[in-house]
Amino acid sequence: MKKAIVLLSGGLDSTTVLAIAQNLKFETYALSFEYGQRHEIELQSAKKIAANFNAKEHKIAKIDLRIFGGSALTDNIEVPKNSLNEKEIPITYVPARNTIFLSYALAYAEVIGAFDIFIGVNAIDYSNYPDCRPEFINSFENLSNFATAIGVKNERKFKIHAPLIQMSKKEIIETGISLGVDYSQTHSCYDPIILKKEVYSCGKCDSCLLRAEGFKSAKATDPIKYLKKS
Amino acid sequence: MKKAIVLLSGGLDSTTVLAIAQNLKFETYALSFEYGQRHEIELQSAKKIAANFNAKEHKIAKIDLRIFGGSALTDNIEVPKNSLNEKEIPITYVPARNTIFLSYALAYAEVIGAFDIFIGVNAIDYSNYPDCRPEFINSFENLSNFATAIGVKNERKFKIHAPLIQMSKKEIIETGISLGVDYSQTHSCYDPIILKKEVYSCGKCDSCLLRAEGFKSAKATDPIKYLKKS
Repeated sequence: MKKAIVLLSGGLDSTTVLAIAQNLKFETYALSFEYGQRHEIELQSAKKIAANFNAKEHKIAKIDLRIFGGSALTDNIEVPKNSLNEKEIPITYVPARNTIFLSYALAYAEVIGAFDIFIGVNAIDYSNYPDCRPEFINSFENLSNFATAIGVKNERKFKIHAPLIQMSKKEIIETGISLGVDYSQTHSCYDPIILKKEVYSCGKCDSCLLRAEGFKSAKATDPIKYLKKS
Repeated sequence: MKKAIVLLSGGLDSTTVLAIAQNLKFETYALSFEYGQRHEIELQSAKKIAANFNAKEHKIAKIDLRIFGGSALTDNIEVPKNSLNEKEIPITYVPARNTIFLSYALAYAEVIGAFDIFIGVNAIDYSNYPDCRPEFINSFENLSNFATAIGVKNERKFKIHAPLIQMSKKEIIETGISLGVDYSQTHSCYDPIILKKEVYSCGKCDSCLLRAEGFKSAKATDPIKYLKKS
């Protein structure tokens, strides 16, 4: 079996990607990050999901992206609500986050001898994040072969798989459902609230809005809990 | 003044790079890493050096590269001695380390609005590390413009400066001396020993051997302390 690293946030997209990698018969090594995110609760989802999918390993790298600041996801900046159609790169963008995540995935790949890395970026519903575009993925793939001992020594080349990159949220959800993903285990909200040990999604941040649109277009029911609309 | 991030380990090379960046009139933001390295003592050097050079800021990012293992610099694997002329990539290579370091530098650059990043890699005396070669630096520079919001939005492009990349250790030391670097503050040894609060370098690891050769060829005296040769 070929080994693959799968970046797993615990969200809808990365969980679908894990299902896709498994379906392609990769032995999967899941990698999550505790990076000072507001929605650290997503790591609980990641743990459940990695276990349910029988990932060979699941590592959680503790890294501190708060030392630089600059994002509503890691700082004490309010998460914007109902701002999906703005053209600017939103304040929830974390500088160079996917570059850092892929760099760690590359280190992990090199240690276990994997040449395949899966990431759930999406260029359609991507909220204008620069590091979710095909040009970014291609340039990281190119870098991987120069950056590593196994890349230099081997004829095999690294492949950064971004299977969702051209899918709509509807297609992602349909793909996941067809592969048996249980979306009740996933977490998407940037600004969740915990009441009596239950996690409620806000329903208004970009991530919640994209998720809601996706389930609506896929004519499926989102199984997670939302705060009642005010 | 243009801002630049300078990766500063506290070693001879990165200290010389900081001097070069200052000499080029950049306002410098030094970045060091606590990554589980055996020779964490180098961070004490980095702090002194950043202060002496009046770096505008000095951040130390705490990141855990031990979770993946695979290197004598982070694991309980003996640091090889007198192994400089072997052709293989040595066990002191830390998988994807420079990719991870540059990714953090890129995040820092994006937050402060810098387009210049300095790194002290060297392709001559580089111990066969893959991520010290010009191809690696060029591909990371290319990536930087795709990976970031400021790279996408601006006409200005990122520049990864690797001023030592084609220098011999002799030339590096001569450059540093001409710029007033105090090499007594730098630390290079992978396997240092602390005796009565004094740091002694082993004199036998690859890093010590390269340093010793450099000072010898530059006809200069290395001001740091070594264990007596046995």
